[in-house]
Amino acid sequence: MRKISESTVRRLSLYLRFLEQFDAQGQATISSAELARRGGTTSAQVRKDLSFFGSFGKRGLGYSVPELTARIRDILGLRRTYRVVLVGAGRIGSALIQYPGFRQRGFHVRAIYDTDPKKIGSGWNGLVVKDARQLESDLAREPTDIAIVVTPAEAAQDVVDRLVRAGVKAILNFAPAQLVVPADVVVKSVNMALELETLSFALANR
Amino acid sequence: MRKISESTVRRLSLYLRFLEQFDAQGQATISSAELARRGGTTSAQVRKDLSFFGSFGKRGLGYSVPELTARIRDILGLRRTYRVVLVGAGRIGSALIQYPGFRQRGFHVRAIYDTDPKKIGSGWNGLVVKDARQLESDLAREPTDIAIVVTPAEAAQDVVDRLVRAGVKAILNFAPAQLVVPADVVVKSVNMALELETLSFALANR
Repeated sequence: MRKISESTVRRLSLYLRFLEQFDAQGQATISSAELARRGGTTSAQVRKDLSFFGSFGKRGLGYSVPELTARIRDILGLRRTYRVVLVGAGRIGSALIQYPGFRQRGFHVRAIYDTDPKKIGSGWNGLVVKDARQLESDLAREPTDIAIVVTPAEAAQDVVDRLVRAGVKAILNFAPAQLVVPADVVVKSVNMALELETLSFALANR
Repeated sequence: MRKISESTVRRLSLYLRFLEQFDAQGQATISSAELARRGGTTSAQVRKDLSFFGSFGKRGLGYSVPELTARIRDILGLRRTYRVVLVGAGRIGSALIQYPGFRQRGFHVRAIYDTDPKKIGSGWNGLVVKDARQLESDLAREPTDIAIVVTPAEAAQDVVDRLVRAGVKAILNFAPAQLVVPADVVVKSVNMALELETLSFALANR
Protein backbone atom coordinates (compact mmCIF):
# COMPACT_ATOMS: atom_id res chain seq x y z
CA MET A 1 0.00 0.00 0.00
CA ARG A 2 1.18 3.51 -0.81
CA LYS A 3 2.00 5.81 2.06
CA ILE A 4 -1.07 7.76 3.21
CA SER A 5 -0.52 11.34 4.37
CA GLU A 6 -2.00 12.66 7.59
CA SER A 7 -4.24 15.05 5.65
CA THR A 8 -5.65 12.07 3.74
CA VAL A 9 -6.25 10.22 7.01
CA ARG A 10 -8.13 13.25 8.33
CA ARG A 11 -10.30 13.41 5.24
CA LEU A 12 -11.01 9.67 5.44
CA SER A 13 -12.09 10.18 9.02
CA LEU A 14 -14.49 12.93 7.90
CA TYR A 15 -15.85 10.85 5.00
CA LEU A 16 -16.50 8.04 7.49
CA ARG A 17 -18.71 10.35 9.55
CA PHE A 18 -20.79 11.30 6.53
CA LEU A 19 -20.98 7.70 5.35
CA GLU A 20 -22.26 6.59 8.75
CA GLN A 21 -24.97 9.24 8.55
CA PHE A 22 -25.95 8.13 5.03
CA ASP A 23 -25.93 4.50 6.14
CA ALA A 24 -28.23 5.30 9.08
CA GLN A 25 -30.60 6.97 6.61
CA GLY A 26 -30.61 3.84 4.45
CA GLN A 27 -28.79 5.38 1.49
CA ALA A 28 -27.12 2.59 -0.53
CA THR A 29 -24.72 4.53 -2.77
CA ILE A 30 -22.95 7.86 -2.74
CA SER A 31 -21.16 9.84 -5.44
CA SER A 32 -17.72 11.37 -5.05
CA ALA A 33 -19.43 14.74 -5.70
CA GLU A 34 -21.69 14.34 -2.67
CA LEU A 35 -18.80 13.26 -0.41
CA ALA A 36 -16.80 16.21 -1.72
CA ARG A 37 -19.61 18.66 -1.01
CA ARG A 38 -20.01 17.42 2.55
CA GLY A 39 -16.26 17.30 3.13
CA GLY A 40 -15.54 20.77 1.74
CA THR A 41 -13.26 19.37 -0.96
CA THR A 42 -13.38 18.38 -4.66
CA SER A 43 -14.61 15.22 -6.38
CA ALA A 44 -11.09 14.73 -7.76
CA GLN A 45 -9.67 14.83 -4.23
CA VAL A 46 -12.25 12.32 -2.99
CA ARG A 47 -11.48 9.93 -5.86
CA LYS A 48 -7.76 10.33 -5.19
CA ASP A 49 -8.21 9.67 -1.47
CA LEU A 50 -10.31 6.57 -2.11
CA SER A 51 -7.97 5.28 -4.82
CA PHE A 52 -5.55 4.36 -2.03
CA PHE A 53 -7.78 1.33 -1.43
CA GLY A 54 -7.92 0.22 -5.03
CA SER A 55 -10.81 0.86 -7.36
CA PHE A 56 -14.25 -0.16 -6.20
CA GLY A 57 -16.50 2.75 -7.07
CA LYS A 58 -18.59 2.15 -10.18
CA ARG A 59 -18.59 4.95 -12.73
CA GLY A 60 -22.05 6.51 -12.83
CA LEU A 61 -23.25 4.50 -9.84
CA GLY A 62 -21.03 5.93 -7.15
CA TYR A 63 -19.68 4.08 -4.15
CA SER A 64 -21.52 1.49 -2.12
CA VAL A 65 -22.10 3.14 1.28
CA PRO A 66 -21.71 -0.02 3.42
CA GLU A 67 -18.69 -1.22 1.42
CA LEU A 68 -16.90 2.12 1.58
CA THR A 69 -17.76 2.48 5.29
CA ALA A 70 -16.24 -0.92 6.02
CA ARG A 71 -13.11 -0.19 3.97
CA ILE A 72 -12.46 3.14 5.69
CA ARG A 73 -13.07 1.65 9.13
CA ASP A 74 -10.57 -1.02 8.20
CA ILE A 75 -7.89 1.37 7.00
CA LEU A 76 -8.34 3.62 10.07
CA GLY A 77 -7.85 0.66 12.39
CA LEU A 78 -11.42 0.89 13.70
CA ARG A 79 -12.44 -2.77 13.39
CA ARG A 80 -11.15 -3.46 16.89
CA THR A 81 -11.43 -1.77 20.27
CA TYR A 82 -8.61 0.07 21.98
CA ARG A 83 -7.86 0.08 25.66
CA VAL A 84 -7.21 3.70 26.65
CA VAL A 85 -5.91 5.11 29.93
CA LEU A 86 -6.23 8.72 30.98
CA VAL A 87 -3.58 10.45 33.09
CA GLY A 88 -4.95 13.54 34.83
CA ALA A 89 -8.44 13.64 36.38
CA GLY A 90 -9.38 17.19 35.42
CA ARG A 91 -12.17 18.88 33.51
CA ILE A 92 -10.86 18.26 30.02
CA GLY A 93 -10.40 14.59 30.85
CA SER A 94 -13.94 14.47 32.17
CA ALA A 95 -15.36 15.98 28.98
CA LEU A 96 -13.32 13.53 26.91
CA ILE A 97 -14.33 10.45 28.82
CA GLN A 98 -18.01 11.32 28.49
CA TYR A 99 -17.74 12.05 24.80
CA PRO A 100 -19.92 9.39 23.12
CA GLY A 101 -17.85 9.51 19.91
CA PHE A 102 -14.91 7.85 21.66
CA ARG A 103 -16.75 4.75 22.77
CA GLN A 104 -18.74 4.46 19.54
CA ARG A 105 -15.47 4.22 17.66
CA GLY A 106 -14.02 1.61 19.98
CA PHE A 107 -11.85 3.77 22.22
CA HIS A 108 -12.58 2.49 25.72
CA VAL A 109 -11.19 4.46 28.64
CA ARG A 110 -10.41 1.78 31.22
CA ALA A 111 -8.49 3.62 33.90
CA ILE A 112 -7.80 7.12 35.13
CA TYR A 113 -4.75 8.22 37.12
CA ASP A 114 -3.85 11.29 39.13
CA THR A 115 -1.22 12.31 41.69
CA ASP A 116 -3.57 14.40 43.83
CA PRO A 117 -4.39 12.54 47.10
CA LYS A 118 -7.74 14.37 47.19
CA LYS A 119 -8.70 12.84 43.85
CA ILE A 120 -7.23 9.35 44.25
CA GLY A 121 -9.94 6.86 45.25
CA SER A 122 -12.81 9.12 44.29
CA GLY A 123 -15.48 8.11 41.78
CA TRP A 124 -15.10 9.77 38.44
CA ASN A 125 -17.40 9.10 35.49
CA GLY A 126 -17.91 5.47 36.46
CA LEU A 127 -14.22 4.85 37.21
CA VAL A 128 -12.23 5.21 40.41
CA VAL A 129 -9.25 7.55 40.19
CA LYS A 130 -6.07 5.54 40.76
CA ASP A 131 -2.74 6.62 42.15
CA ALA A 132 -0.43 7.50 39.25
CA ARG A 133 2.28 5.44 40.99
CA GLN A 134 0.29 2.36 39.95
CA LEU A 135 0.76 3.14 36.24
CA GLU A 136 3.68 0.75 35.69
CA SER A 137 2.21 -2.20 37.56
CA ASP A 138 -1.22 -1.76 35.94
CA LEU A 139 0.18 -1.45 32.42
CA ALA A 140 2.38 -4.50 32.93
CA ARG A 141 -0.78 -6.47 33.78
CA GLU A 142 -3.03 -4.89 31.15
CA PRO A 143 -1.24 -3.93 27.96
CA THR A 144 -2.65 -0.63 26.73
CA ASP A 145 -2.63 0.88 23.27
CA ILE A 146 -3.39 4.51 23.84
CA ALA A 147 -2.89 7.01 26.67
CA ILE A 148 -4.49 10.43 26.94
CA VAL A 149 -2.28 12.85 28.86
CA VAL A 150 -3.99 15.79 30.55
CA THR A 151 -1.35 16.77 33.10
CA PRO A 152 0.24 20.17 33.76
CA ALA A 153 2.93 21.01 31.20
CA GLU A 154 5.84 20.41 33.57
CA ALA A 155 4.69 16.87 34.41
CA ALA A 156 3.88 15.73 30.88
CA GLN A 157 7.26 14.54 29.63
CA ASP A 158 7.91 12.45 32.74
CA VAL A 159 4.48 10.81 32.47
CA VAL A 160 5.02 10.16 28.77
CA ASP A 161 8.43 8.60 29.41
CA ARG A 162 6.83 6.24 31.92
CA LEU A 163 3.97 5.37 29.54
CA VAL A 164 6.43 4.66 26.73
CA ARG A 165 8.58 2.43 28.95
CA ALA A 166 5.38 0.58 29.88
CA GLY A 167 4.67 -0.15 26.22
CA VAL A 168 2.12 2.51 25.22
CA LYS A 169 2.51 3.24 21.50
CA ALA A 170 0.10 6.12 20.94
CA ILE A 171 -0.46 9.26 23.00
CA LEU A 172 -3.05 12.00 22.76
CA ASN A 173 -1.54 14.96 24.59
CA PHE A 174 -3.50 17.89 26.00
CA ALA A 175 -0.63 19.33 28.06
CA PRO A 176 0.86 22.51 26.57
CA ALA A 177 4.29 20.91 26.14
CA GLN A 178 6.33 19.54 23.27
CA LEU A 179 6.91 15.87 23.95
CA VAL A 180 9.87 13.78 22.91
CA VAL A 181 9.13 10.12 22.14
CA PRO A 182 10.91 7.27 20.36
CA ALA A 183 10.29 6.84 16.62
CA ASP A 184 7.88 3.93 17.11
CA VAL A 185 5.53 5.96 19.32
CA VAL A 186 3.03 8.40 17.85
CA VAL A 187 1.91 11.55 19.66
CA LYS A 188 -0.92 13.91 18.75
CA SER A 189 -1.12 17.15 20.68
CA VAL A 190 -4.24 19.22 21.15
CA ASN A 191 -3.84 22.60 22.78
CA MET A 192 -7.02 24.60 23.19
CA ALA A 193 -5.38 27.89 24.17
CA LEU A 194 -3.02 27.57 21.24
CA GLU A 195 -5.95 27.14 18.86
CA LEU A 196 -7.49 30.31 20.24
CA GLU A 197 -4.15 32.09 19.85
CA THR A 198 -3.96 31.25 16.17
CA LEU A 199 -7.37 32.96 15.98
CA SER A 200 -6.27 36.05 17.93
CA PHE A 201 -3.16 36.20 15.74
CA ALA A 202 -5.36 36.13 12.64
CA LEU A 203 -7.62 38.85 14.08
CA ALA A 204 -4.64 41.03 15.04
CA ASN A 205 -2.85 40.65 11.71
CA ARG A 206 -5.60 41.06 9.15
CA MET B 1 6.15 42.48 8.32
CA ARG B 2 6.83 39.22 6.51
CA LYS B 3 4.08 36.63 6.37
CA ILE B 4 4.20 34.32 9.38
CA SER B 5 3.23 30.69 8.81
CA GLU B 6 0.81 28.87 11.07
CA SER B 7 3.55 26.55 12.28
CA THR B 8 5.57 29.60 13.36
CA VAL B 9 2.53 31.01 15.16
CA ARG B 10 2.15 27.70 16.99
CA ARG B 11 5.79 27.71 18.06
CA LEU B 12 5.53 31.34 19.22
CA SER B 13 2.54 30.33 21.29
CA LEU B 14 4.59 27.55 22.89
CA TYR B 15 7.59 29.83 23.50
CA LEU B 16 5.23 32.25 25.23
CA ARG B 17 4.19 29.56 27.69
CA PHE B 18 7.80 28.80 28.59
CA LEU B 19 8.68 32.50 28.82
CA GLU B 20 5.80 33.10 31.24
CA GLN B 21 7.09 30.26 33.41
CA PHE B 22 10.63 31.68 33.33
CA ASP B 23 9.26 35.16 34.09
CA ALA B 24 7.30 33.82 37.08
CA GLN B 25 10.55 32.27 38.36
CA GLY B 26 12.32 35.64 38.04
CA GLN B 27 14.64 34.59 35.22
CA ALA B 28 15.78 37.71 33.32
CA THR B 29 17.27 36.25 30.15
CA ILE B 30 16.95 33.11 28.10
CA SER B 31 19.05 31.60 25.34
CA SER B 32 17.69 30.32 22.05
CA ALA B 33 19.15 26.92 23.05
CA GLU B 34 16.99 26.77 26.18
CA LEU B 35 13.84 27.82 24.31
CA ALA B 36 14.67 25.22 21.65
CA ARG B 37 15.14 22.49 24.24
CA ARG B 38 11.79 23.25 25.88
CA GLY B 39 10.02 23.64 22.55
CA GLY B 40 11.36 20.43 21.04
CA THR B 41 13.08 22.31 18.20
CA THR B 42 16.51 23.70 17.27
CA SER B 43 18.26 26.95 18.24
CA ALA B 44 18.39 27.86 14.57
CA GLN B 45 14.60 27.48 14.32
CA VAL B 46 14.07 29.61 17.43
CA ARG B 47 16.32 32.36 16.07
CA LYS B 48 14.53 32.21 12.74
CA ASP B 49 11.10 32.40 14.40
CA LEU B 50 12.12 35.36 16.54
CA SER B 51 13.81 37.15 13.64
CA PHE B 52 10.32 37.95 12.37
CA PHE B 53 10.22 40.69 15.00
CA GLY B 54 13.57 42.21 14.09
CA SER B 55 16.75 41.62 16.01
CA PHE B 56 16.70 42.18 19.73
CA GLY B 57 18.45 39.24 21.25
CA LYS B 58 22.03 40.04 22.28
CA ARG B 59 24.66 37.55 21.15
CA GLY B 60 26.02 35.71 24.19
CA LEU B 61 23.44 37.28 26.50
CA GLY B 62 20.30 35.70 25.10
CA TYR B 63 16.88 37.28 24.99
CA SER B 64 15.34 39.45 27.68
CA VAL B 65 12.48 37.38 29.12
CA PRO B 66 10.09 40.30 29.77
CA GLU B 67 10.88 41.97 26.44
CA LEU B 68 10.42 38.79 24.42
CA THR B 69 7.25 37.94 26.35
CA ALA B 70 5.77 41.34 25.55
CA ARG B 71 6.75 41.12 21.88
CA ILE B 72 5.21 37.67 21.43
CA ARG B 73 2.03 38.69 23.26
CA ASP B 74 1.89 41.66 20.92
CA ILE B 75 2.34 39.63 17.73
CA LEU B 76 -0.20 37.02 18.85
CA GLY B 77 -2.79 39.73 19.46
CA LEU B 78 -2.86 39.05 23.22
CA ARG B 79 -2.57 42.62 24.50
CA ARG B 80 -6.33 43.01 24.47
CA THR B 81 -9.26 40.92 25.63
CA TYR B 82 -11.63 39.10 23.31
CA ARG B 83 -15.34 38.72 23.76
CA VAL B 84 -16.18 35.09 23.06
CA VAL B 85 -19.56 33.41 22.70
CA LEU B 86 -20.16 29.69 22.92
CA VAL B 87 -22.85 27.95 20.88
CA GLY B 88 -23.78 24.58 22.36
CA ALA B 89 -24.09 24.00 26.13
CA GLY B 90 -22.58 20.53 26.30
CA ARG B 91 -19.71 18.84 28.10
CA ILE B 92 -16.92 20.00 25.84
CA GLY B 93 -18.17 23.56 26.12
CA SER B 94 -18.25 23.23 29.88
CA ALA B 95 -14.66 22.00 30.02
CA LEU B 96 -13.57 24.83 27.75
CA ILE B 97 -15.31 27.56 29.66
CA GLN B 98 -13.72 26.43 32.91
CA TYR B 99 -10.28 26.16 31.42
CA PRO B 100 -8.20 28.82 33.24
CA GLY B 101 -5.87 29.26 30.25
CA PHE B 102 -8.61 30.92 28.22
CA ARG B 103 -9.33 33.71 30.68
CA GLN B 104 -5.66 34.22 31.56
CA ARG B 105 -4.97 34.96 27.92
CA GLY B 106 -7.85 37.39 27.58
CA PHE B 107 -10.48 35.14 26.01
CA HIS B 108 -13.65 35.94 27.94
CA VAL B 109 -16.66 33.75 27.34
CA ARG B 110 -19.59 36.17 27.75
CA ALA B 111 -22.58 34.21 26.57
CA ILE B 112 -23.68 30.66 25.89
CA TYR B 113 -26.46 29.59 23.53
CA ASP B 114 -28.37 26.40 22.95
CA THR B 115 -31.57 25.31 21.16
CA ASP B 116 -32.64 22.78 23.82
CA PRO B 117 -35.61 24.16 25.84
CA LYS B 118 -34.44 22.05 28.80
CA LYS B 119 -31.10 23.88 28.83
CA ILE B 120 -32.25 27.41 27.99
CA GLY B 121 -32.53 29.51 31.15
CA SER B 122 -30.48 27.15 33.29
CA GLY B 123 -27.34 28.24 35.13
CA TRP B 124 -24.18 27.00 33.53
CA ASN B 125 -20.70 27.81 34.83
CA GLY B 126 -21.75 31.25 36.04
CA LEU B 127 -23.70 32.08 32.89
CA VAL B 128 -27.34 31.52 31.98
CA VAL B 129 -27.92 29.50 28.81
CA LYS B 130 -29.66 31.68 26.24
CA ASP B 131 -31.98 30.73 23.42
CA ALA B 132 -29.94 30.42 20.22
CA ARG B 133 -32.64 32.45 18.47
CA GLN B 134 -31.26 35.47 20.37
CA LEU B 135 -27.86 35.18 18.65
CA GLU B 136 -28.49 37.83 16.01
CA SER B 137 -30.02 40.43 18.33
CA ASP B 138 -27.34 39.90 20.99
CA LEU B 139 -24.45 40.12 18.53
CA ALA B 140 -25.92 43.26 16.99
CA ARG B 141 -25.84 44.85 20.46
CA GLU B 142 -22.50 43.42 21.54
CA PRO B 143 -20.00 42.97 18.74
CA THR B 144 -18.11 39.75 19.29
CA ASP B 145 -14.74 38.64 17.99
CA ILE B 146 -14.72 34.92 18.47
CA ALA B 147 -17.32 32.17 18.60
CA ILE B 148 -16.78 28.61 19.79
CA VAL B 149 -19.11 26.19 18.02
CA VAL B 150 -19.89 22.92 19.83
CA THR B 151 -23.07 21.86 18.05
CA PRO B 152 -23.93 18.57 16.34
CA ALA B 153 -22.32 18.27 12.90
CA GLU B 154 -25.56 18.82 10.98
CA ALA B 155 -26.27 22.13 12.76
CA ALA B 156 -22.78 23.62 12.53
CA GLN B 157 -22.82 25.24 9.08
CA ASP B 158 -26.12 26.98 9.72
CA VAL B 159 -24.89 28.34 13.06
CA VAL B 160 -21.64 29.47 11.45
CA ASP B 161 -23.50 31.23 8.62
CA ARG B 162 -25.52 33.14 11.21
CA LEU B 163 -22.42 34.03 13.24
CA VAL B 164 -20.63 35.27 10.12
CA ARG B 165 -23.62 37.39 9.07
CA ALA B 166 -23.61 38.85 12.58
CA GLY B 167 -19.99 39.96 12.19
CA VAL B 168 -18.00 37.22 13.95
CA LYS B 169 -14.57 36.96 12.33
CA ALA B 170 -12.99 33.97 14.06
CA ILE B 171 -14.49 30.58 14.87
CA LEU B 172 -13.18 27.68 16.91
CA ASN B 173 -15.15 24.66 15.71
CA PHE B 174 -15.58 21.42 17.67
CA ALA B 175 -18.33 20.00 15.45
CA PRO B 176 -17.15 17.17 13.19
CA ALA B 177 -18.01 19.09 10.03
CA GLN B 178 -16.10 20.96 7.34
CA LEU B 179 -17.24 24.56 7.46
CA VAL B 180 -17.41 27.00 4.57
CA VAL B 181 -16.75 30.65 5.48
CA PRO B 182 -15.89 33.82 3.56
CA ALA B 183 -12.20 34.63 3.03
CA ASP B 184 -12.12 37.25 5.80
CA VAL B 185 -13.27 34.79 8.47
CA VAL B 186 -10.86 32.34 10.06
CA VAL B 187 -11.92 28.90 11.30
CA LYS B 188 -9.95 26.45 13.41
CA SER B 189 -11.41 23.00 13.82
CA VAL B 190 -10.66 20.63 16.68
CA ASN B 191 -12.05 17.14 16.41
CA MET B 192 -11.22 14.82 19.31
CA ALA B 193 -12.40 11.59 17.68
CA LEU B 194 -10.45 12.46 14.56
CA GLU B 195 -7.28 12.91 16.63
CA LEU B 196 -7.82 9.48 18.15
CA GLU B 197 -8.38 8.06 14.68
CA THR B 198 -5.06 9.34 13.43
CA LEU B 199 -3.62 7.36 16.38
CA SER B 200 -5.56 4.18 15.58
CA PHE B 201 -4.51 4.57 11.95
CA ALA B 202 -0.88 4.79 13.05
CA LEU B 203 -1.28 1.74 15.32
CA ALA B 204 -2.97 -0.26 12.55
CA ASN B 205 -0.44 0.64 9.84
CA ARG B 206 2.90 0.33 11.58
